[in-house]
Amino acid sequence: MWDWMAQEGISLVMFEDTEGRRDASIRWLTGQPGDALLFLSVDRKSLLMPWDIILAKAYSRADFIIPYNEFDRMPRKAIRGAAEKLKIPFGSKIEIPPVTPYPVFLDYVGELSEFDIICRDKSAASYALDLRTIKDAEEIALIRKAASVTNVIIGLLEKNVRSGKIKTEADAAMFIELESRKRGCEGTSFETLAAGQDRSFGIHAFPSWTNAPFAGKGLSILDFGLRLGGYCSDVTLTFVREPDAQQEKMVNLVEKSAKLAVEMTVNGNETRALAAAVDSLFSKSKKRMPHGLGHGLGLDVHEYPFLRNRSDYGWKLEPGMVFTLEPGLYDPIHGGCRLENDILMTETGGEILTEAKIIWL
Amino acid sequence: MWDWMAQEGISLVMFEDTEGRRDASIRWLTGQPGDALLFLSVDRKSLLMPWDIILAKAYSRADFIIPYNEFDRMPRKAIRGAAEKLKIPFGSKIEIPPVTPYPVFLDYVGELSEFDIICRDKSAASYALDLRTIKDAEEIALIRKAASVTNVIIGLLEKNVRSGKIKTEADAAMFIELESRKRGCEGTSFETLAAGQDRSFGIHAFPSWTNAPFAGKGLSILDFGLRLGGYCSDVTLTFVREPDAQQEKMVNLVEKSAKLAVEMTVNGNETRALAAAVDSLFSKSKKRMPHGLGHGLGLDVHEYPFLRNRSDYGWKLEPGMVFTLEPGLYDPIHGGCRLENDILMTETGGEILTEAKIIWL
Repeated sequence: MWDWMAQEGISLVMFEDTEGRRDASIRWLTGQPGDALLFLSVDRKSLLMPWDIILAKAYSRADFIIPYNEFDRMPRKAIRGAAEKLKIPFGSKIEIPPVTPYPVFLDYVGELSEFDIICRDKSAASYALDLRTIKDAEEIALIRKAASVTNVIIGLLEKNVRSGKIKTEADAAMFIELESRKRGCEGTSFETLAAGQDRSFGIHAFPSWTNAPFAGKGLSILDFGLRLGGYCSDVTLTFVREPDAQQEKMVNLVEKSAKLAVEMTVNGNETRALAAAVDSLFSKSKKRMPHGLGHGLGLDVHEYPFLRNRSDYGWKLEPGMVFTLEPGLYDPIHGGCRLENDILMTETGGEILTEAKIIWL
Repeated sequence: MWDWMAQEGISLVMFEDTEGRRDASIRWLTGQPGDALLFLSVDRKSLLMPWDIILAKAYSRADFIIPYNEFDRMPRKAIRGAAEKLKIPFGSKIEIPPVTPYPVFLDYVGELSEFDIICRDKSAASYALDLRTIKDAEEIALIRKAASVTNVIIGLLEKNVRSGKIKTEADAAMFIELESRKRGCEGTSFETLAAGQDRSFGIHAFPSWTNAPFAGKGLSILDFGLRLGGYCSDVTLTFVREPDAQQEKMVNLVEKSAKLAVEMTVNGNETRALAAAVDSLFSKSKKRMPHGLGHGLGLDVHEYPFLRNRSDYGWKLEPGMVFTLEPGLYDPIHGGCRLENDILMTETGGEILTEAKIIWL
């Protein structure tokens, strides 16, 4: 990151992780789990401005930690304060996050006229996202651990659905919440989506789970992820009971496409090609998947690389990438089916980390 | 909204509610619970572009509903498509959300040169937020309902902590998840923060809850909210057991400041004045609250009005406003204490909707 700054002639970079403008790169760079600004100066100093100073001192590493409150939680004051603390000369280039809204950017430029304020897509923030696309050994170890707890829970879920202990969406969701924390997870990586046979028509059920029956006659979807040491897993199971012909056809197609996608997890393949292959398999049966094939996993549950059949979404698979494959089909009458597993690219190709499956009851 | 558009000479307005750029105003305007663009034309037509068309057809009202996928989930294509469908003449003013990042705004302006693309703070989106500050009768009924379920759960929580049935953070958090849904809630309005005596030093505990003991010797914080028909409650209880002198002092100060704040919920009072009064009460005891005094509640768990001691945060209390009052104090050694209740402003002043309290064990 420092070299990149020097190369780009940037003296100070600001990262922002606040409500409505989340950026897990602050956690990636400092350990701070949320609600903070981070400033990096080209002479390799870091200044963290957390909302909660007590929490930051317990979790985070930075050369300086100053409460954001000292700057009234106003980014403009914070930038000026950081420039002073880190001895940034007037006239220097200061880069602010690329998600800065246009009207806010105008404000900054007006009020910080002693500096050259820069806001662009190709930024330190996007460079951090690019770097985060390839996981290092420590990150992979955490993701493997999250996946392994996920697999234990998948096994228990299947057992408890079969035994009748899990009968409602709430049973399934609550089981995951509790069992994941018992096994060292920070929690779930997103709100569990438990959609019983009457609600599985939605890609992301709304509400995410209720007291409705689960795993009855038809198709039920259970989409959940765990977070361990910051890193996410993300899987989807479909439970099938006494399917009609249409449901059986959907399930078989989804399984077939998942298999096809896994076969294509070869280093050098384009993520787009995987998505295109699955779309094409579905369209041969006159079906259409209303969402992308998958997404990267890391500190964010949605990060690079994205696997979508779109010309502006291009990554080549390479070792260290971690992502989901999650083909799915949905029908307003027959319900939905999705199968999602997490893949780690290694030197020899894709390794399936998770054990999600279609569960026939 | 339509009158405002005519007044401002805007032909088409775009709202966006997507990951990273949430805007509950789309739900407020159409019922759509998430992941969509919404376009309003000055001739009073609405066009919704949801990610999940099946879900949208089940929940939402708009003159036209077209899948966002038909525009490859690309806002630029969507804007052009909406302008065509709603017959917006070339050269017209099209307003995009004020949170649009600066680099994205430049893209839009470049690619949609046949229109006059406008992005500004004083926007349709901010006008909607202003309108949402004053709740109508239907909204108040839903908030009262959410508060009433919250109160039932507060009562049960106290009972179960006293009886020893709730002994861990997980016990408390899981109890809330399950009991709220049993009583018709969509779920919690944010991740429950259950911080036992060893973790209550954080304003927002991280992780939000664990298997750690809860309500043991010292101070434990339980901050939770429910969502019913889209509308949020948000309360915080503090459990106190065998406090030391310092803890007792903090608790008494927080209770005193909560009482003071409630007394000041008089129509016409400035939100800032309430926050300033509490800050000043604390500072007399050489304490400092590291967060604002409160925030509005509605479809968002944080919305207008904000109650903060800052010159740029000014609202006058008026009937129909709903907000939290949540004084708190935190210490790295002695732990934290917060008391949060929800207030509805009526013609005669503040009405406390919720029954959160300091619970002495």
